[in-house]
Amino acid sequence: MQIIECLQLQVLAFKQYNSPSKHFQKKDLVIHKAQHLKEKPQKDFAYTFGGISTDYMLDIDYDADNGGWKNPVIKANEPFMLDPANATLQYSIECFEGMKAYITVDKKVALFRPDMNFKRMNTSHKQLGLPAFDGDQMTECLKELVKIEKDWIPDRPMHSLYIRPTSICMDNKLGLSSVKKCKTFVVLCPVGPYYPRGFQPVKLYCDTQIVRAWPQGFGDKKIGGNYAPALKTQRKGHELHGADQALWLLHDYVTEVGTMNFFVFWKNEQGEDELITPPLDGTILPGVTRDSILTICRNKNQFKVSEKPFKIQELMKACTEKRVYEAFGAGTAAIVSPVKQFVYDNVNYEIPIDAQSGAGKLTHEILQTITDIQYGRTKGHQWNIEVCNI
Amino acid sequence: MQIIECLQLQVLAFKQYNSPSKHFQKKDLVIHKAQHLKEKPQKDFAYTFGGISTDYMLDIDYDADNGGWKNPVIKANEPFMLDPANATLQYSIECFEGMKAYITVDKKVALFRPDMNFKRMNTSHKQLGLPAFDGDQMTECLKELVKIEKDWIPDRPMHSLYIRPTSICMDNKLGLSSVKKCKTFVVLCPVGPYYPRGFQPVKLYCDTQIVRAWPQGFGDKKIGGNYAPALKTQRKGHELHGADQALWLLHDYVTEVGTMNFFVFWKNEQGEDELITPPLDGTILPGVTRDSILTICRNKNQFKVSEKPFKIQELMKACTEKRVYEAFGAGTAAIVSPVKQFVYDNVNYEIPIDAQSGAGKLTHEILQTITDIQYGRTKGHQWNIEVCNI
Repeated sequence: MQIIECLQLQVLAFKQYNSPSKHFQKKDLVIHKAQHLKEKPQKDFAYTFGGISTDYMLDIDYDADNGGWKNPVIKANEPFMLDPANATLQYSIECFEGMKAYITVDKKVALFRPDMNFKRMNTSHKQLGLPAFDGDQMTECLKELVKIEKDWIPDRPMHSLYIRPTSICMDNKLGLSSVKKCKTFVVLCPVGPYYPRGFQPVKLYCDTQIVRAWPQGFGDKKIGGNYAPALKTQRKGHELHGADQALWLLHDYVTEVGTMNFFVFWKNEQGEDELITPPLDGTILPGVTRDSILTICRNKNQFKVSEKPFKIQELMKACTEKRVYEAFGAGTAAIVSPVKQFVYDNVNYEIPIDAQSGAGKLTHEILQTITDIQYGRTKGHQWNIEVCNI
Repeated sequence: MQIIECLQLQVLAFKQYNSPSKHFQKKDLVIHKAQHLKEKPQKDFAYTFGGISTDYMLDIDYDADNGGWKNPVIKANEPFMLDPANATLQYSIECFEGMKAYITVDKKVALFRPDMNFKRMNTSHKQLGLPAFDGDQMTECLKELVKIEKDWIPDRPMHSLYIRPTSICMDNKLGLSSVKKCKTFVVLCPVGPYYPRGFQPVKLYCDTQIVRAWPQGFGDKKIGGNYAPALKTQRKGHELHGADQALWLLHDYVTEVGTMNFFVFWKNEQGEDELITPPLDGTILPGVTRDSILTICRNKNQFKVSEKPFKIQELMKACTEKRVYEAFGAGTAAIVSPVKQFVYDNVNYEIPIDAQSGAGKLTHEILQTITDIQYGRTKGHQWNIEVCNI
């Protein structure tokens, strides 16, 4: 036995991984005209989430042995060939992001905090051994794609263009080893309001048998592997209890809801009004909407805002003692998703919901504040990133 | 609050999920002749793992809304089209198996315990919400594929045909929801000995920062999501310590090595000779080789054989006290992979290795016993499943 390593070596290895290889840049963007363009939906079309994709996609290839990142390409959104031995299909070397573009009240096209998404995507890349990229250049390339596809964005209340960046490994080999080739692509889908007929509050199922993520695991990365196994719990909750989503627990601590972050607004045991959400301890996805809600509510300065762990038993007790004002999930697709009920150990617990509007007062306010920024009703907000005129 | 559920409901839901839909069957197998066949390697070709695929693949589609499983098809092994919005690329709805076909000393083609692989694959399917299949029918279809491709199996010592069954979701939608369409396919690769120049014992790196799997998680399923995030630890171990594989820990308990099960043969604290491996507590993959080794060593009845938890500190203490005889990983690709050293908290611990052969005596014996069965030197063993004559 001997001590063979030292801090310098660790630092060196870390620097090597993070050293700037040649990043792709917007100035090298190549645009291939699509042969055929689809007919766009009628003005009153009822959009479903992910039901329609637009004509073009952004596509950026990487090959470690041949110069790293290639020039970004905008081209027709169409299927591509994958070998049965592709490492993504075998070992889930894949990650994604979810974001949106909006038509503002000033008839501009805008993005919402794209820097946050591409920062998170880079942490996913690092976890998976995919190459780093320059987030600002990625945003600039995305802007070009959105500009080309701006006519796809429905200019209607609460409509938007959903943006799905994805990275996959393109190596064809059955052995699990370092990534040599990968592909980052972005596809777009026009979407309508998440709740077309007003809020539909959800019922949650607490599965005490399954854990979504764990300390020192990968639950804070937006990687594919975090999503597939969770389907079983969602289905179980639906079959057994008619629940819409899972409320994930870890050692009784509440972590996430479905694929969203979870917030509770309550009078805490100390009698203070408090908005609480679990902390970013590595088991929680660092949501862009989560961050936005925390910032907005801290700026309000009307109640305590806490990122700290809390147990399902604390929530059950608060429900019983009628101290819970509201609870909601938070994510890009819905922004806020009000919770009306959860079931734990076969017992239902009720969360107050305004029967008429389907959500609580704070939930409404948060939705209003965020959409005011996204749709440009709040002028010149730093989270609203202008792309072009419509 | 009210108690709304009862056991009957749970049983009903469970039965629904497990009810036999129409399974695919070997009698419906369709064979499409390939247009072009590849040239087979020369007799002395040096095979690498996954370097060459054979001409044909087995391909079985499923569509919940159109009759469930389709007829199994054997056709040319070639890339197929996937939409950028394919749910496998987004949410890792994917699982796989690894198994082998051998040419026996009697010039027969044989499989090794295929029932075990397809039983495990069905548990992966269940976790992912993929449909169940009949494992026996799957084995029969696989036999037909192997028969067609038998000339690809190198008739040379320690050579075999690696078999990779894979299942992926074929739905194209950006929302995470129940699987409607999927595809199960099998590709084949001729492989040489895992250690062409005799055993190459490995060095392991204990990462105290990253946990591979968790109680009530998914570590006992052979799903893609368990593999990708682990690449970072393997790379880190290599960069910092020149290690070949990760030795995975959970709360200091030893769990797996790289993508293999882990065995230690030692004199335990009670002074007994003991072969020990972590138990199947949900964090450990139920390996076919693991099961085979346990059965073989229990039948030997020469030393204690234990499936029970042990801590890395126990292993370190045993190393220091020179009580460790051997340690090895176990999996389909290598069968046994001897360990010569591990590094924990920057300290190296040595495991005895016979300098000439690169492995310990028991490691050698296990390899011999298993390959005797696989290559038919042990006659009529129930684990050796005959496919055809060569």
